[in-house]
Amino acid sequence: MFVSDNLNVNAQGNLTIGGIDCTELAAQYGTPLYVMDEDLLRQNCRRYYSALNDYCDGNGLVLYASKSFCCKAMCRIAAEEHFGLDVVSEGELYTALSAGFSAERIVFHGNNKKFSELTFAVNSNIGAVVVDNLAELKTLNAIAEKADKVVGIMLRIKPGVDAHTHDFIMTGQIDSKFGFALETGEAFEAIKAALSYRNLDLKSLHCHIGSQIFEVDPYEYASAIMLGLMKKVKDELGFAIPGLNLGGGFGIKYTQNNTPVDYEKHIECVAKAVKNECAKLGLAVPKLYFEPGRSISGPAGITLYTVGAVKEIPGIRTYVSIDGGMTDNPRYALYGAQYEVCSVKNAAAPRSNTITLAGKCCESGDLIGKDMQLQPVEPGDLVAVFATGAYNYSMSSNYNRIPRPPVVMVSGGQSRVVVKGETLEDIIRNDLD
Amino acid sequence: MFVSDNLNVNAQGNLTIGGIDCTELAAQYGTPLYVMDEDLLRQNCRRYYSALNDYCDGNGLVLYASKSFCCKAMCRIAAEEHFGLDVVSEGELYTALSAGFSAERIVFHGNNKKFSELTFAVNSNIGAVVVDNLAELKTLNAIAEKADKVVGIMLRIKPGVDAHTHDFIMTGQIDSKFGFALETGEAFEAIKAALSYRNLDLKSLHCHIGSQIFEVDPYEYASAIMLGLMKKVKDELGFAIPGLNLGGGFGIKYTQNNTPVDYEKHIECVAKAVKNECAKLGLAVPKLYFEPGRSISGPAGITLYTVGAVKEIPGIRTYVSIDGGMTDNPRYALYGAQYEVCSVKNAAAPRSNTITLAGKCCESGDLIGKDMQLQPVEPGDLVAVFATGAYNYSMSSNYNRIPRPPVVMVSGGQSRVVVKGETLEDIIRNDLD
Repeated sequence: MFVSDNLNVNAQGNLTIGGIDCTELAAQYGTPLYVMDEDLLRQNCRRYYSALNDYCDGNGLVLYASKSFCCKAMCRIAAEEHFGLDVVSEGELYTALSAGFSAERIVFHGNNKKFSELTFAVNSNIGAVVVDNLAELKTLNAIAEKADKVVGIMLRIKPGVDAHTHDFIMTGQIDSKFGFALETGEAFEAIKAALSYRNLDLKSLHCHIGSQIFEVDPYEYASAIMLGLMKKVKDELGFAIPGLNLGGGFGIKYTQNNTPVDYEKHIECVAKAVKNECAKLGLAVPKLYFEPGRSISGPAGITLYTVGAVKEIPGIRTYVSIDGGMTDNPRYALYGAQYEVCSVKNAAAPRSNTITLAGKCCESGDLIGKDMQLQPVEPGDLVAVFATGAYNYSMSSNYNRIPRPPVVMVSGGQSRVVVKGETLEDIIRNDLD
Repeated sequence: MFVSDNLNVNAQGNLTIGGIDCTELAAQYGTPLYVMDEDLLRQNCRRYYSALNDYCDGNGLVLYASKSFCCKAMCRIAAEEHFGLDVVSEGELYTALSAGFSAERIVFHGNNKKFSELTFAVNSNIGAVVVDNLAELKTLNAIAEKADKVVGIMLRIKPGVDAHTHDFIMTGQIDSKFGFALETGEAFEAIKAALSYRNLDLKSLHCHIGSQIFEVDPYEYASAIMLGLMKKVKDELGFAIPGLNLGGGFGIKYTQNNTPVDYEKHIECVAKAVKNECAKLGLAVPKLYFEPGRSISGPAGITLYTVGAVKEIPGIRTYVSIDGGMTDNPRYALYGAQYEVCSVKNAAAPRSNTITLAGKCCESGDLIGKDMQLQPVEPGDLVAVFATGAYNYSMSSNYNRIPRPPVVMVSGGQSRVVVKGETLEDIIRNDLD
């Protein structure tokens, strides 16, 4: 009935998450409310961790893509689940270190890291910087040299694989701001340059072929291309690159129309493809890295809202307005992203009405979705939007000076706040008199 | 040469804003940096204020739409320029009151105001609540009754006027989450209901026909429709609605392709149209309200960035990466909005290169614009994006846990911080251990 197995309906007919009645969560913490199911987060982590252990003979590391949902509590969970961390800014790095995350298990991504970020990364002794371009390679080496350190790096390669996803979240192709193009020879030159720097240690190549991908083939294809490059490097430069990072992009079930691959199966297939290709090419099997974000945090989260105005425009559309919107979930406004919504108090009832779920921002485009299916609702009713654990809290804004909602985590039937909701004082905190 | 008259080039060839060298601003405050020209802000305010005085015989009030750019300093400027304020949330109301803005000159908008927001508005004795729907009318009257007050209201009407703008920023039509439809009779019924509530005082009707509009005609047309409704109300209900709020939507010059109307001319034309129509209908000329936001704050702002990676992909595209992006300006990602960009150090030179200006977020869609014209630039160079005063700071996020830049205001050759830049401590402030 629901896009995620941790959602259910209790004897009162109310929606539950991780076994907790959503009406109780809303009563205790108010709405809008981000709710994350810690047990599902951990379960999702364990699926990747076990699969990588099983199919890569322990020679792998899963890096949680923290941009999907980052806070100190989430970093701690990732650490406890034996994950590494993929951070994309000094803010994410600072969060991870503040949470006690081991620096050596952190990799730092980005097409345009600032000098201060690279310096912070080097000083923190992180595991690897995923270098995006030649200028960064040079800068990073200079920083490392000055600090008298050897810094681990990965190189971000554009393998030219198009995973057929939304134009805005397709990043493996040559027309991308990220990385070195393989087909132009740029990637090979970058590797040569990387090997020439004495304070850099090339640990892995990296590629990321897109987001919300439902097929394994593009990953197998991308890994073959990357291994071909590694073979060329071994043959021509005499260096065996020890790792291969295949990025993230694993699709999740936002709606019943989405059919994610089984993540274990996915790791199994890709690992097999890598092993076969390595055997063919005479390469040692590299350490494999994956960077799931959305598929860890996305399904674990829901957002609870209270219904306000319900506006039926005869023959046109029914707007159901909620007490949040694009400030806490901008993904419809940004990508036309699809979500499912459900009434909390009669969650098992048929979602028989076609409605447009509108936010409270003073902006026509502030919608959570058009033409969604929902049970009949009235002002004051609670609704839940599903699969909002990724790229909701992390992309939230204070547009309209609306404070950001708290994030509550549920686990083993208990709930706790992991990110405090913003107050009106927070809103004006940085305004000077 | 530039989209705004307050931008210039000094003897060193550097871009200036309000007479101040942008290289000095960047050196003093760092980048990314929002810079607002207070003198231009005030000049923009005065144009509206004078025009309304001149053409409406002093019987009008300009309300600054604070959602375009809201902070305490901006509220103070609006107050000093004899403006009222249009707020859309308790956060904006709180900001205004914290800045000492007179409550009676504030109107409160929104399609789904929370009970707490309506209560806050009533307790603060604001000038008017712009009521959006029947449920709100009832709730507001109950709150007012309990507080033993008579609360000023406006009623948001959908006049059915399409101002031919981007689908997402077109709000005057019947298929909108905002307001009462005129054509279905809903608006008339709402007025009847409003007049029946003893604790509500109907001060004005309100309509808003869109955003970034370059023509006067739609406003004239909308005002005629609204006056027709006011005539019907007078004839059938015996009540002369004393005010007419024609909203905002005045277009600005983001690029040289944009041709905004002269705002004085605009007010003059609309005021004349209203007077003529009133004479025809035998109505007293109502108090006129306008709600400019973008046209006050937009042209007054620029954003300064430092160039990082410059990535030329032969035959395809050159990506110029900057140290900000969709976190401080999400308008390209949201609407495909167009901006102009200029090198700070040789601002008068021809912008001879076609480039894509990419942000530093770990997201392919994080661009400020595609195929923009820019002087040749190198890593470390400063660039300025123009007309970012509206809907940039106000829509900014911490995606990728990137701290928001400070807002600096320049005036009379001096600069000062009006919104402090966020620190890494701010980023984890609400994360619980």
